Amino acid sequence: MKAARYYGQRDIRIDDLPEPQVGPGTVGIEVAWCGICGTDLHEYLEGPIFCPTHDTPHPISGETSPITLGHEFSGVVYAVGEGVADIAVGQHVVVEPYIIRDEVDTGPHSTDYHLSRDMNFIGLAGRGGGLGEKIAVQRRWVHPIADSVPLDQAALIEPLSVGYHAVQRSGAKAGDVAVVGGAGPIGLLTSAVLKALGVTVVISEVSDLRRRKATESGVADHALDPRTADVAAEVRRLTGGRGADVAFECTSVQVVLDTLMDALRPTGVLVVVSIWGKRAEFDMHKLVMKEIDLRGTIAYVNSHPATIELVESGKIDLEPFITGRIGLDGLVDEGFDTLINHNDSAVKILVSPSGKGL
Amino acid sequence: MKAARYYGQRDIRIDDLPEPQVGPGTVGIEVAWCGICGTDLHEYLEGPIFCPTHDTPHPISGETSPITLGHEFSGVVYAVGEGVADIAVGQHVVVEPYIIRDEVDTGPHSTDYHLSRDMNFIGLAGRGGGLGEKIAVQRRWVHPIADSVPLDQAALIEPLSVGYHAVQRSGAKAGDVAVVGGAGPIGLLTSAVLKALGVTVVISEVSDLRRRKATESGVADHALDPRTADVAAEVRRLTGGRGADVAFECTSVQVVLDTLMDALRPTGVLVVVSIWGKRAEFDMHKLVMKEIDLRGTIAYVNSHPATIELVESGKIDLEPFITGRIGLDGLVDEGFDTLINHNDSAVKILVSPSGKGL
Repeated sequence: MKAARYYGQRDIRIDDLPEPQVGPGTVGIEVAWCGICGTDLHEYLEGPIFCPTHDTPHPISGETSPITLGHEFSGVVYAVGEGVADIAVGQHVVVEPYIIRDEVDTGPHSTDYHLSRDMNFIGLAGRGGGLGEKIAVQRRWVHPIADSVPLDQAALIEPLSVGYHAVQRSGAKAGDVAVVGGAGPIGLLTSAVLKALGVTVVISEVSDLRRRKATESGVADHALDPRTADVAAEVRRLTGGRGADVAFECTSVQVVLDTLMDALRPTGVLVVVSIWGKRAEFDMHKLVMKEIDLRGTIAYVNSHPATIELVESGKIDLEPFITGRIGLDGLVDEGFDTLINHNDSAVKILVSPSGKGL
Repeated sequence: MKAARYYGQRDIRIDDLPEPQVGPGTVGIEVAWCGICGTDLHEYLEGPIFCPTHDTPHPISGETSPITLGHEFSGVVYAVGEGVADIAVGQHVVVEPYIIRDEVDTGPHSTDYHLSRDMNFIGLAGRGGGLGEKIAVQRRWVHPIADSVPLDQAALIEPLSVGYHAVQRSGAKAGDVAVVGGAGPIGLLTSAVLKALGVTVVISEVSDLRRRKATESGVADHALDPRTADVAAEVRRLTGGRGADVAFECTSVQVVLDTLMDALRPTGVLVVVSIWGKRAEFDMHKLVMKEIDLRGTIAYVNSHPATIELVESGKIDLEPFITGRIGLDGLVDEGFDTLINHNDSAVKILVSPSGKGL
C-alpha cells in the first residue's frame, strides 16, 4: 500500500509499504480521508518536533523515522482483530490518535491521560498514520460515527475535538460572549463548538478571506480586523461595557494575547489553544487586577464521543471548512505548499490516500 | 487626634486632625493596632500608586493627598451612627478596607465587588486610615471579632484574608501539596491558610531567616533554598514523581514563576498573589502542554468572616508573624526603614496610633 512518510525537514516521500497486521485488540481501517494539520506543516518546515529522529526511538512506540504521517482521519473498518467484539467490518470510524503508555488509565472517567508522560500521536510518532491507505489501531482509540456523516467531514472530527476540549477548559456556557483570536482551522472549529453551545462569538482576524469564511460559515457573530478596529472596545460595546466571558488564543502571536486580556471581563477565562515556539510576554498586573484565569489546553481527553454527537446531530456542519481534496501524490505540491503559501484562503485540505474518494 | 498622612514620595507626616464624624450607617472605631503593608512601602518609595495625587481626586472618595494611611487594622467601637443596630460600643472589630461605588452589589453572595471599577482602599485613597487614632467606617466593611483574639493579632486579619482568597482561587483542598514561592508576609499568611486546610506546604525562599520563620511558625512542612536546591525536583520527590497540586507566586520575581511552573503537576493551578510592576515572561508552551491554570488574585471578596473564624477557632495563630510594635512617631524610622532595610528578619510591624498599646 502507499503511505506518506516523514524522513526529516522538507523530506516527505510516498513509499510502498506492506499492509498493517490487524493484531489482537486492534481494528483494521481503510482510510477514507486524512486532513493536513498545522502540526504536519511544522514537522515539514522546522521538524522533527513530535516525530522521532532516525536514531532515537520514541519511548512508547519504539519507532524511529521514517514515520507515516497523518493523524486527522476517517475510514471504514475492513477487519477486526482477536477479542474485538463491539465493532464490525463496514463500520465508519474516526480515530483518537493517541500513543500512550499501557499502564496509564485511559478509561472514560480519566481527565488527564492526554498529559501522561511521553504522550504522542499516531501519525507523528509511529503506529502508522492516516496518510497511508490502511492502518491498524487499538480498539480504545477507534470511535464509530454514523453513516449519515460524510467521511470527508468525519476527518475533521479530530481538530474539532481540539476545539471541543478547549471550550470545555474555558467553562463557557450558553449566553456567554467569547472572543476568538485567529480564524485559522483551530480558531474556526473552536468557534463552531462555541456557537453550537449557544455562545456569541467575536472573531479577531487580520485576513479578509478568513474573516469572510468565519461569518459565511456562521461560526462568528462578529468578525473584526484588529488592524482597524479596537477589538477590546468593540467587545465592551457589545457586552454593555462588561467585556467577554471567555477568550481563545489561537495564533501564538503576542499582540493577540494582549488584546484578549483587554477584551475579557473581570474573572474572565483566557484559554491558550495555540502552540508557542517562543516565550510569551505577559501583563501580569492585569491578570492579577482582573483576576483572569489563563488556561492551557492541549488536544482532547474523552472528548470524541461528545464531539461526534455535535456533528451527528447536525449542530455543527463541517463542510464549509473543507477547502481542498487531493491524492497522496499531490501531498507536498498541492497540499503542504498551498497551506504554506496561501494559508488565508485554505482551511482544511483533505487527502484520499487510496485516491478512491477523488 | 494624630494621624500619619501621605503627601507624596518619601513624604509622610504625622498631623493633628479633627476626629471623624460618625455619620448615619457608620461605625466609629478607636484603632488599636495597624500593620504596615508592602503596599504602604511602595507608596512611600515609588508612589503615588494607589493614593490619589494632590490635584486628581479619587473618583469614589473624592479625596486628594494628603491621605491618611493604614488599611490593616483592628480596634474597638466607640460610637455607632444612626441606623446601625447590630453592633455595640465596646465591640472588637476589624475592617475590610474597601472604597467601592454605592451602586455595586457588595452583598454576601457577590463574588466580584473587589473587581468593580475604581475600587480602592481605605487608608490609601481616602475615608481615613488605620494609622490615625480614630476612624468612621461604613457598617458593611466592619467585621466583629471575638475578644479572645488579641487586638494585635486581629490587625493581621486583613493580610490573612488576602491569603484566604488566594487559596480559594486555587481550589486547594485537604491532602493537596502546595508550593509557595516567597516567605514574605503574604507568602507566610497564605501558607498559614493552606496548613489550616490540611494542605502540605513547601516554601521556596532565598532568605535563611525567612525560611526559619516559615518552619518555626509551623506554616511550612518544607522550606527550600532555591539557590542550592532544585525545588521542582524536590517537590516531585515529595509527591511520588507527580508534582504539586497548587502553587502560589508571592514574589513578582521571574525565576520564581518558572520554578513554580516546573514544580506543578499536569492540570495544576498557579495563583499569582504578588503585584508585578513589570511584564512577566512566560513559558507558554509549558502552560499548554501541562494544561496549567494561571490565576490572578487580588485582595478578598466576602473572605473576612471565614478568615476570622480560622483565627477565632485557633486553627491559625498569628502571633509568630508580629515582629515589631511601635508608636506613630516611629512610623518612618522604626517602621518603614526597618522593613526596607531588614526585610528578611521583619515580618509584620504593628503601629499603635494612640500609643496606648505600647
